[in-house]
Amino acid sequence: MQVSEKIAQLKAAMASESVDAFIVANTDPHNNEYAAPRWHCRHWLSGMKGSNGTVVVTADWCGLWTDSRYYEAAEMALEGTGIELMRMSDQGVPSITEWLKKHLKAEQTIAFNGANTNLKQAQAWVKAFEQSEMKTRSDLDLIAPLWTDRPAAPKGELYIVPDEYTGQSISDKIATTRAKMTEGKLDAYLLGRTDESCWLLNFRGTDMPENTTPYCHTLITHDDVLFFVDADKLTPEAREKFTAAGVSIHDYDDIDTQLQNLAEKTRLLIIPEYINYQLAKATEHCTQIENRAIVTDLKAVKNATEIKHSHRCHIDDGTAIVRFYTWLYRTLKAGEKVTELSASKKLTACRAEIEGFRQPGFESIMGYGPDGSLNHYSVDETNDKPVLLESIFLIDSGGSYIHGTTDTTRTIPMGTPTQEQKEDYTAVLSSMIELLTLEFREGTTGAQLDGICRQPLWQAGRDFKHGTGHGVGFGLEIHEGPQNISGVSTEQMKLGMVTTIEPGCYRPGSHGIRIENMVHTVLSKENEFGRFFKFENLTICPINTDLIDPACFAERHRIWLNDYNQEVYEKISPHLNDEEREWLKHECRELASS
Amino acid sequence: MQVSEKIAQLKAAMASESVDAFIVANTDPHNNEYAAPRWHCRHWLSGMKGSNGTVVVTADWCGLWTDSRYYEAAEMALEGTGIELMRMSDQGVPSITEWLKKHLKAEQTIAFNGANTNLKQAQAWVKAFEQSEMKTRSDLDLIAPLWTDRPAAPKGELYIVPDEYTGQSISDKIATTRAKMTEGKLDAYLLGRTDESCWLLNFRGTDMPENTTPYCHTLITHDDVLFFVDADKLTPEAREKFTAAGVSIHDYDDIDTQLQNLAEKTRLLIIPEYINYQLAKATEHCTQIENRAIVTDLKAVKNATEIKHSHRCHIDDGTAIVRFYTWLYRTLKAGEKVTELSASKKLTACRAEIEGFRQPGFESIMGYGPDGSLNHYSVDETNDKPVLLESIFLIDSGGSYIHGTTDTTRTIPMGTPTQEQKEDYTAVLSSMIELLTLEFREGTTGAQLDGICRQPLWQAGRDFKHGTGHGVGFGLEIHEGPQNISGVSTEQMKLGMVTTIEPGCYRPGSHGIRIENMVHTVLSKENEFGRFFKFENLTICPINTDLIDPACFAERHRIWLNDYNQEVYEKISPHLNDEEREWLKHECRELASS
Repeated sequence: MQVSEKIAQLKAAMASESVDAFIVANTDPHNNEYAAPRWHCRHWLSGMKGSNGTVVVTADWCGLWTDSRYYEAAEMALEGTGIELMRMSDQGVPSITEWLKKHLKAEQTIAFNGANTNLKQAQAWVKAFEQSEMKTRSDLDLIAPLWTDRPAAPKGELYIVPDEYTGQSISDKIATTRAKMTEGKLDAYLLGRTDESCWLLNFRGTDMPENTTPYCHTLITHDDVLFFVDADKLTPEAREKFTAAGVSIHDYDDIDTQLQNLAEKTRLLIIPEYINYQLAKATEHCTQIENRAIVTDLKAVKNATEIKHSHRCHIDDGTAIVRFYTWLYRTLKAGEKVTELSASKKLTACRAEIEGFRQPGFESIMGYGPDGSLNHYSVDETNDKPVLLESIFLIDSGGSYIHGTTDTTRTIPMGTPTQEQKEDYTAVLSSMIELLTLEFREGTTGAQLDGICRQPLWQAGRDFKHGTGHGVGFGLEIHEGPQNISGVSTEQMKLGMVTTIEPGCYRPGSHGIRIENMVHTVLSKENEFGRFFKFENLTICPINTDLIDPACFAERHRIWLNDYNQEVYEKISPHLNDEEREWLKHECRELASS
Repeated sequence: MQVSEKIAQLKAAMASESVDAFIVANTDPHNNEYAAPRWHCRHWLSGMKGSNGTVVVTADWCGLWTDSRYYEAAEMALEGTGIELMRMSDQGVPSITEWLKKHLKAEQTIAFNGANTNLKQAQAWVKAFEQSEMKTRSDLDLIAPLWTDRPAAPKGELYIVPDEYTGQSISDKIATTRAKMTEGKLDAYLLGRTDESCWLLNFRGTDMPENTTPYCHTLITHDDVLFFVDADKLTPEAREKFTAAGVSIHDYDDIDTQLQNLAEKTRLLIIPEYINYQLAKATEHCTQIENRAIVTDLKAVKNATEIKHSHRCHIDDGTAIVRFYTWLYRTLKAGEKVTELSASKKLTACRAEIEGFRQPGFESIMGYGPDGSLNHYSVDETNDKPVLLESIFLIDSGGSYIHGTTDTTRTIPMGTPTQEQKEDYTAVLSSMIELLTLEFREGTTGAQLDGICRQPLWQAGRDFKHGTGHGVGFGLEIHEGPQNISGVSTEQMKLGMVTTIEPGCYRPGSHGIRIENMVHTVLSKENEFGRFFKFENLTICPINTDLIDPACFAERHRIWLNDYNQEVYEKISPHLNDEEREWLKHECRELASS
C-alpha cells in the first residue's frame, strides 16, 4: 500500500469515529527508546524511519514532526507523500500541541492510542486540549485494522547475567530498592520501562537485534516481586534464579489484572514517562505517586565491578575496530569494492569474534562522504553507497557485551582531506578534549558541561544541533538517563555515572564529523570549595591525526592526544596480528607541534 | 517580643485551629521579589532578614530554610532562637515538602496563608500533601493577630516615564499585548506581578525605597484595560495619561470583584508564579490558562531607545562610583573614620547627584574584609563595621534612574593584598571576561553560559555557590526574567536581553570577591551554522588591576582588560574634577604582561 493510500484509509476511519485529528507515533507500551517493529505505526504510515517522529493527520492535512537529526532523512522519505515536514528543532516551528490548538476548533476531537502513549505525554495533551475546549479520546487504535501485515510481538530468549559481572545480586538489588521505597513511604512500585526490570533482576533479552531489554513489567511490593513476561522466553536457569530470589512469574498480559488487584489507596510509585496511559488508568484506585524511577538513580551510578568490566570491554571493542580498519584500508587499496552496508556487516563480524559479545549496541551509523552529515543515518539496501579512497568516513557504532556496552564514533580520512575538513575535525576534537580534561565542581549539570564542550566550536564559528552526550547502561540501554549533556539538561553529573562525549560538525552535501568517547565520572580532588570531579576515559580506540590542522590545535590538546593514542597502542597492540599492529602503530604515531 | 515568645504564641494559635504545621514566608500577594515590610512575616517571626527564607513551625519544632547566600547571615540571626537552620543548597538536605512528608502523619493538617502564597507554590504543596493523605488549609492568617505593630501597606507616589525613555507608548504596548493574546486565543490576561503593569503602562512607583514597582494589578481584555491601584498614589499626569490610553482606574481591593464579574469560561491567562492562591480561586469560573506572562518576553527584549539610554546611564553611574572611590580613599588616608554604613550612604549620595536618579537599584552590599564573604550581606546599625586601609572591599550596588538601571560589583584593595586574594581575584576576573569575549550560537541557554563562565574558577580549584547572572529590567526589577545564567537555567539568551555577569569567590572569615558587569545580547555574525551572538558591555566602571596576579592571567584576558579600562577612562573622565580624574587615570593604567 502506498503512503497516500494508507493516509486516505486512516482519514476514512477517523471520519467514521468522528475524530478530527489523530496522532501516530512509533512508541510502544513501555515508551522504550527502541520499540519492536510491531509498534512502528508512524513508520508504517509515513515511510519515515528514525527514532523520533510523530505524524498528525486531520481531514485535510498531514504533517510529521521530527528533530534536526532526521531533517535530511525525513525530507527524502516524505518526498511525494503529501506529508508536510515540521522541523521541530527550528525556531518558530509550532509544537504538535500548538499546531492543533491553532488549526482545530472548540468541540473538535483529537485522538491517540492510550495503549502506546506514556502517561506524561497523554496528560499534557489532555490538559492542553481541554484548555482549548477540545475533546480527547485515547481508546482508539485506528492503525491496527488497516495494518494487515503487522508483525507479532517478539519472542526472544531471556538470559541471566552472572553476579561476577553485575557486582550485585538480585536479592541485594531488591533489598536496596525496597529500602528506597520505605524512604519514600511507598507500598508498591511499578517498573514500566523494560531496562528497570533487567537491572533489578540481572537479566537481558533478545527481543530486538540491537537492544537487550525485552518486553516485560515488574511490580515490587514489600512482600512480593511480580515479574510479567511471556514465559516462553525464560530459560530454565532464569526461572530458577528468579524463584530463588523470591520473584514470581506472571504472564505479560496479566499486569492489568494484578494492578487492579492492588488494595484501594495502595501508595504506588508510577513513572509518568514509563507507564502507558491505559495502564495508568488501571491504577486509579491506588494513591498514584508520580515520581522518577527508583531504579534510574541506582543503575546510573555504576559499581566498581561494572567499571572494571567496562574498561576491559573497551579494550576488546577497540581491538575489533582496529581489525575492521585494517581490513577496510587493505580491501580498498586492493581495489575491491566496499559499501557502507558491507562495511557495517564487517564491523559487526569483527565484534562478534570478541568473547562475551551479544549483539550490536545499536544500529551502526556508517556515513561515507555526504552521508556523514546525516546525523542518524541508517544504511540498508535502499540507500547503500560505495566507500571510496576519497572523502572522509564517519563511523558511530558500539557493542553490547556480557561485560559492558560501548559507543564509539571516529571519523577517518579515506583520501587527502580538504582544509575545511581539517579545520572542522580539529574544532570537533578540541571540543571533546575540553571535557576529557576538565575538572568541575560537584553539582555541575549537563547543560554547564555542554556549554564548555561547544566553546572551541563556537570560537571557530561552528556548532552542531544534537546533544553533546548521553548516559549509557551497563549492557542495557545505549541512551540511559537520568544524566545527559545538552543545553537543557539540569541533571547533575554524579560520581560513577557513565556518559558519552560526542561533539560534531556537519556540512550537508559534503561531509560530517563526529568524535565520541565514553567516560566515567570520578573524584578529582576536594578542598574548601567542595568536591571536584573529572572524567576518566573509557573508550580505547585510536583518534586519527591526519585530519588535524596543527595550526588551530592547542598545545594542551596535542599533549592529551599523544598520551591518549600512546595508551591506545599499549592496550590494544598485544591483541593484534602483525599487520594490524603495524597499522595501529602508524595511526597512533606522535603528532608534532605546529 | 522575643522570637521564642512569638513562636510560642503562634504554636498556641495553631493548636486552637488544629493546625499541625504552619509555613511562614516573606512573600506578598504578587510574589514580588521585594515585598513591602507589611508582608515580612518570616522576618518578624524569626528575626532573619534576606530575600530567601521560609519558616516551618510544628508543635515541637521550628526550622528555617534558606539558600547558601544567606547561610552565614542566618546562622547569626537564629542563634539562641531555637530555630534550626535548614541549608537548602546543600546535598541531602530535605526540602520543606520532603521534611513535612517525613515528620507529619496522614490526616494531620498543614496550613499556609493563601493570600500571600503564589498559585504555583500552593498547587505544589496541596498536591504533595494530598499524596501523603495530609490536609492543607490556605485560609488562615495566623500571623496577623499576633503582629500588633504590623506596618501598613505603602502609599508611594506613582510617576509616568515619558515615551522618549521607554521607546514605546502605552497604546503601542497595549496593542502589542493584545496581538499576543489573539495569537494565544485569550479573552483576558491578569498582570499579577507588579512590574508587568509598570512596563505596560509606562509608570514607576515609590512604594519601597529600593524598588520601583508599586502594589497594583492590571486586567487586560480585548476591549478594556482595568488598572487596580490605591488612587491616592496617582499624580494628575498619570491619571491623564492612563485615561488617554483607555485605561480605567479601580481600587486595589476591587480586583476580586472584577475577576468574579468575568463571564463564565472567559479564557483568562494567569501566571502561576505571579498570582496568589486566593485570587486564583476567585477565577475558577473562568477557563484558566496557566502560562508564562506575555509581558515577560516583551519587556525582556530591550528596544533601541532603552539600550541608548542604558549606555548613557552606565556612564553616569560609573561617574558616581568613581567620585565615591575618590572620596573613600581620600577620607581614609586622612585618618577619618569610614564604616560600611557611612560608605553606603555616601555612595547613594554620589548617585543622587546624577540627573535622572530616582532611588538605589537595590540595597547596596558593602562587604569589607570578612563581610565580603557573606553573599548578600546587608549592613545596618546592628552590624556596621569600620572600613580600614587593610583588607579588600566588595561593593555591589546600583541605581534606578529614569534612563535605566545599573548593577555593578567591584572588589578593591584597601591595603596590600595577599597572594591568595590576588589568585582569587584573578580567577574571578578571568571568569567574567570569558563571557564578555564569548561568541555563542543562537539558542544557547543560561546554563551553557554558566559552565563556560565557571571554567577558569574550576581550573583554579575554586567556585561560587550563587548564580552567575540575572536579567535586569529597564528602570524595573533588578532581577528580571525570563533569562538568567545558572547551572539550571534552560532559558535561551535572546537578542536584546540585558543580563549581569557576576562570578565570585568567597572565603568565610577572610574575604569575598565578586566582579560584575551588565551586558546586552547582540548579533555577532551569521553563517551556515546559524546566527552567533555576543555580549555588548554596558557597565562603565574601572576594574582594579592591583589585585591581579599577572602570572595566572591569560594574555587575551589582559588585552580585553586594558581596552576596557581605557574605554572607562575615556567615557568617565570628562565628567570628573581634577582629583577624581587623576585617581581614575591611575586606576585605569595599563596592566603590563607578566
